[in-house]
Amino acid sequence: MKPDPPLAEPVSATLKRFAEGFDQRFSKVLKTVKDTPESLAEAMCYSALAPGKRLRPFLVAECCRLVGGAPEAAFPAATAIECVHAFSLVHDDLPAMDDADLRRSRATSHVKFGEALAILAGDALVTLAFELLAAPVMGSNGGEADDSRRAVALVSELAQAGGWQGMIGGQVADVQGETQPIDRQLVEYIHRCKTARLLEAACRMGVLSGDGGSEQLERLGHYGLHLGMAFQIVDDLLDATASVEQTGKSVGKDAVAGKQTYPACVGIEESRLAARRAVDAAVEALETFGIEAQTLRALAVYVVERAGCGFPP
Amino acid sequence: MKPDPPLAEPVSATLKRFAEGFDQRFSKVLKTVKDTPESLAEAMCYSALAPGKRLRPFLVAECCRLVGGAPEAAFPAATAIECVHAFSLVHDDLPAMDDADLRRSRATSHVKFGEALAILAGDALVTLAFELLAAPVMGSNGGEADDSRRAVALVSELAQAGGWQGMIGGQVADVQGETQPIDRQLVEYIHRCKTARLLEAACRMGVLSGDGGSEQLERLGHYGLHLGMAFQIVDDLLDATASVEQTGKSVGKDAVAGKQTYPACVGIEESRLAARRAVDAAVEALETFGIEAQTLRALAVYVVERAGCGFPP
Repeated sequence: MKPDPPLAEPVSATLKRFAEGFDQRFSKVLKTVKDTPESLAEAMCYSALAPGKRLRPFLVAECCRLVGGAPEAAFPAATAIECVHAFSLVHDDLPAMDDADLRRSRATSHVKFGEALAILAGDALVTLAFELLAAPVMGSNGGEADDSRRAVALVSELAQAGGWQGMIGGQVADVQGETQPIDRQLVEYIHRCKTARLLEAACRMGVLSGDGGSEQLERLGHYGLHLGMAFQIVDDLLDATASVEQTGKSVGKDAVAGKQTYPACVGIEESRLAARRAVDAAVEALETFGIEAQTLRALAVYVVERAGCGFPP
Repeated sequence: MKPDPPLAEPVSATLKRFAEGFDQRFSKVLKTVKDTPESLAEAMCYSALAPGKRLRPFLVAECCRLVGGAPEAAFPAATAIECVHAFSLVHDDLPAMDDADLRRSRATSHVKFGEALAILAGDALVTLAFELLAAPVMGSNGGEADDSRRAVALVSELAQAGGWQGMIGGQVADVQGETQPIDRQLVEYIHRCKTARLLEAACRMGVLSGDGGSEQLERLGHYGLHLGMAFQIVDDLLDATASVEQTGKSVGKDAVAGKQTYPACVGIEESRLAARRAVDAAVEALETFGIEAQTLRALAVYVVERAGCGFPP
């Protein structure tokens, strides 16, 4: 395949622009709600609209576009998956879990709002995710059959990737892995379930939102899964090698906690190679999409090169 | 309206029989899962299959039957709402919330499995609820249009009743109400959102599962809402007046915690009257269903008379 021509802007700029537009719209959705305790709405917004890359919504939007869907069509799935992501961060940070005080350079939810409200804000965000997926159909008076089919497929995708056989299963293995000997299979299970499956789901939900076909579903799903593996290995590496200023969160905690990570398992250099291999696999899955997938390819490279982690080219 | 003829068996026996059959089937669903940490599956089963009345699944099944649906049709919604109920109990019992050690005469989830796993088992149960609602459609190769419409309506119903404007909103108000002066409007908001809306949703989901019409949806929804108010007032009364042996959980904690309850607000006698009025309103909503609604009427009476709380006839 020919190398891509230069992008009109760095992918980081594209992401930033997307995130701003997305947050503006998402914040309107979150702030129009009535009949809920103010403190709950505030805690939900604090986490759902926290500074962040909005990588998952971006993947939904970009995969929807790639299969010919309208930008509008991606919005419900993009908001839903960001809710699930935000929920997972809030609960992962809790004292009983990772006990983190800092997230994206700000106090974590339980530090700011107390533990009870943080747990409940997480609970409300995951429930809201499914409300958001059903809303377009319910809003249209029962909905067209295609709208309903699409919504159910999105619910199924998100519930599976975010559930006991996906993200939650991965988080359980992660927490329990702290007291187990480092094991490569376990590390891979944790990274796949806890992180990669949600990125896979983001891509698949984008394809579903844009009414793409089953081959597109599979290919872009693979892209997301490998991207997710790369992403999580880089996260491990950042914790092992970067500073608080670079990451905006507490670092060096994985080793102290005895976490199952790539660096703990195979060392820093082999982790960098593993991240690179995952990126290559992600890029390969995009082959049939040609030049249109240029941004997703650049995104995969950006993910491993962020924060100057010194990756092999 | 004529008084109902005697039931073939007491409603408590009907509930018990239903619960046994339901648990048997539900346990098969829960235990066929692969690719999830064993400890997570165990903690989920511990809570989802804990001894209990299975009131919400029963309401789903009975309302489905009332509108002419097949028993089979109610099962996905019945399991889904029980997952949401079990999730809410696990999180409500956490140290940061009600800090309860005992639930249905057994150790609560965090006492048995530790706090991290309890939080995650709750998270997994709420996610599983939505997976279960989508599963029948996804299992049938994309599904018939009617199946999809029904599934989306069920997702919407459950997400709203269980979410920030429903159960979670009520739980937030409940936790925060401990430090506020007792206020009747607040008590009613908490009881409606935290308890009654999920019973309302159970009834409405039963109607949706059986493809009932909008009038049936509204009437049986009203029944569930009033039943839920009665149910929660009785719960308040049991905490204020009953023993651990009678209830199978810690008692007398509401007053100590400064909870917003009916007894704290209007006293024991007026609370009993309020429960009775709620039951009357529930029964009234059933009027058009005639003799077929006999079991639901008996259930409403059973709810206020359980555990010998001394209700006015």
